[in-house]
Amino acid sequence: MTEIPKNHPRYESLIAREKIVSGVNRGLTSQQGLTAQGRGEAFDYLIGEKTIASAEHAETAAACLLLLAENPVISVNGNAAALVPKELVELAELTGSKLEVNLFHRTPERVKKIVDELKKYDASCVLGENAEPLLNLDHERAKVERDGIFAADVVFVPLEDGDRCKALTEMEKLVITVDLNPLSRTAQTAHVSIVDNLTRAISNMIQMIPELVLLSKNELWEVIEQYDNKMVLADALEEMKEHLTEKQNELLGIDPTPKGPTPEEVEEMEKRAEIRKRVLMRGADLMME
Amino acid sequence: MTEIPKNHPRYESLIAREKIVSGVNRGLTSQQGLTAQGRGEAFDYLIGEKTIASAEHAETAAACLLLLAENPVISVNGNAAALVPKELVELAELTGSKLEVNLFHRTPERVKKIVDELKKYDASCVLGENAEPLLNLDHERAKVERDGIFAADVVFVPLEDGDRCKALTEMEKLVITVDLNPLSRTAQTAHVSIVDNLTRAISNMIQMIPELVLLSKNELWEVIEQYDNKMVLADALEEMKEHLTEKQNELLGIDPTPKGPTPEEVEEMEKRAEIRKRVLMRGADLMME
Repeated sequence: MTEIPKNHPRYESLIAREKIVSGVNRGLTSQQGLTAQGRGEAFDYLIGEKTIASAEHAETAAACLLLLAENPVISVNGNAAALVPKELVELAELTGSKLEVNLFHRTPERVKKIVDELKKYDASCVLGENAEPLLNLDHERAKVERDGIFAADVVFVPLEDGDRCKALTEMEKLVITVDLNPLSRTAQTAHVSIVDNLTRAISNMIQMIPELVLLSKNELWEVIEQYDNKMVLADALEEMKEHLTEKQNELLGIDPTPKGPTPEEVEEMEKRAEIRKRVLMRGADLMME
Repeated sequence: MTEIPKNHPRYESLIAREKIVSGVNRGLTSQQGLTAQGRGEAFDYLIGEKTIASAEHAETAAACLLLLAENPVISVNGNAAALVPKELVELAELTGSKLEVNLFHRTPERVKKIVDELKKYDASCVLGENAEPLLNLDHERAKVERDGIFAADVVFVPLEDGDRCKALTEMEKLVITVDLNPLSRTAQTAHVSIVDNLTRAISNMIQMIPELVLLSKNELWEVIEQYDNKMVLADALEEMKEHLTEKQNELLGIDPTPKGPTPEEVEEMEKRAEIRKRVLMRGADLMME
């Protein structure tokens, strides 16, 4: 790896890039994965390279769904395997999910290498080597395992292609994704779209789970009922617009007058605080509708 | 190349990505070029994957500068060579520019391969193999040819690194770049920053030239005098914000009330129409200031 000084202002981002380059060199990640990483970097920059509040909300809903699922599957592609192999194994362990290697640019060699990589981090069982063309897509794109993604009720497909994400939602599965582009077809078709850097998203979810497992099933469902993916995507777009306005003001030398939140923003913040409270504190039993 | 179905909604973008992958495989493009391509894709998405009006204005100014220059040089890096080799040769021919291979991750092998690639498209002369460390930067980054970029009065450096773009502007050259990120240091230090996809930018410039060559030198200078790079960058940020707002409205099912342009917008549009008229129609002689 190229040496990157720890005090570099974009240390995290540069380390992630080096991990992807290493993934390509080790045959885990396709070259197209480097492009995907670059796209992510651009959108991450626009949200300030931090987990925004609405993404944290989506991460909570995603963790709840994985905990509630009968048969959850976490899909692992080449970029995910290069960036967070250990964390994916840990998340699967904590949520009782199966892991399945699921590649857009699929070759048997790459599938095998990723399976082996995950096993290095003590994954007990990793699916993907016996995939069959079971999705409603052209042959190579259609491959999933019969006992894995095909049979799942909840699938977590971080960094997924738009067509494949859509095919999964059409099979009446609940689909969770991580995608830094809130406008992508993947983000717009999934049921829970986490607009966050994959490394931050997985680590946040792992940290949330010890508190979430203390909740009853009804309370977990309540979190999901409260969840509105459209609002989450709209909020991510709002964050990007605010960031662009800031940069535009800098460019034109405009000093914007500081102002307080609008009544709508106050209401939204109160709503968010309320949801958070319900998630974090065990309250009275909540009825499912 | 991986086969991309023609009906894929993002066919053009995927084909460009495949061209970069092919560039890497043929030794023209570095792996880092793939990440750069991805970053570009993200910003292109935000301007709607089309040439915005302010970018067209920048492309006109850039074409005028190349036509007015005594000694124009077009710099070619690994991504440009993979994406638009034929078009770069054509642009050089039409504007009487020299071509120079100019790499951030420089190796003699890559320079040679790009020279050969451009010669395949009938480039008569391609510089770059005799580069010397003449820029005010560390040794490897400083290399340009004495009779090429070093001696040029106008340099066109699409997809250039921020440090190198700055070093060139400090040598009192007029610097033109193509960069989809209006916030990058390259976009912010060049004199003419085209916020557009390289493929579209070069093709637009080639199309403009037959009309521009009909103008007098004074008319070409007039176009350049009218040009304000800060406004062009601010406009690109505005387009991104508008695009994000549009998508946000679509997402939330909001139908924004149609409204006419503001007085400032009317003034701006009239100004643009005036500039266009001057460019497109041969008018009375215009005095240089």
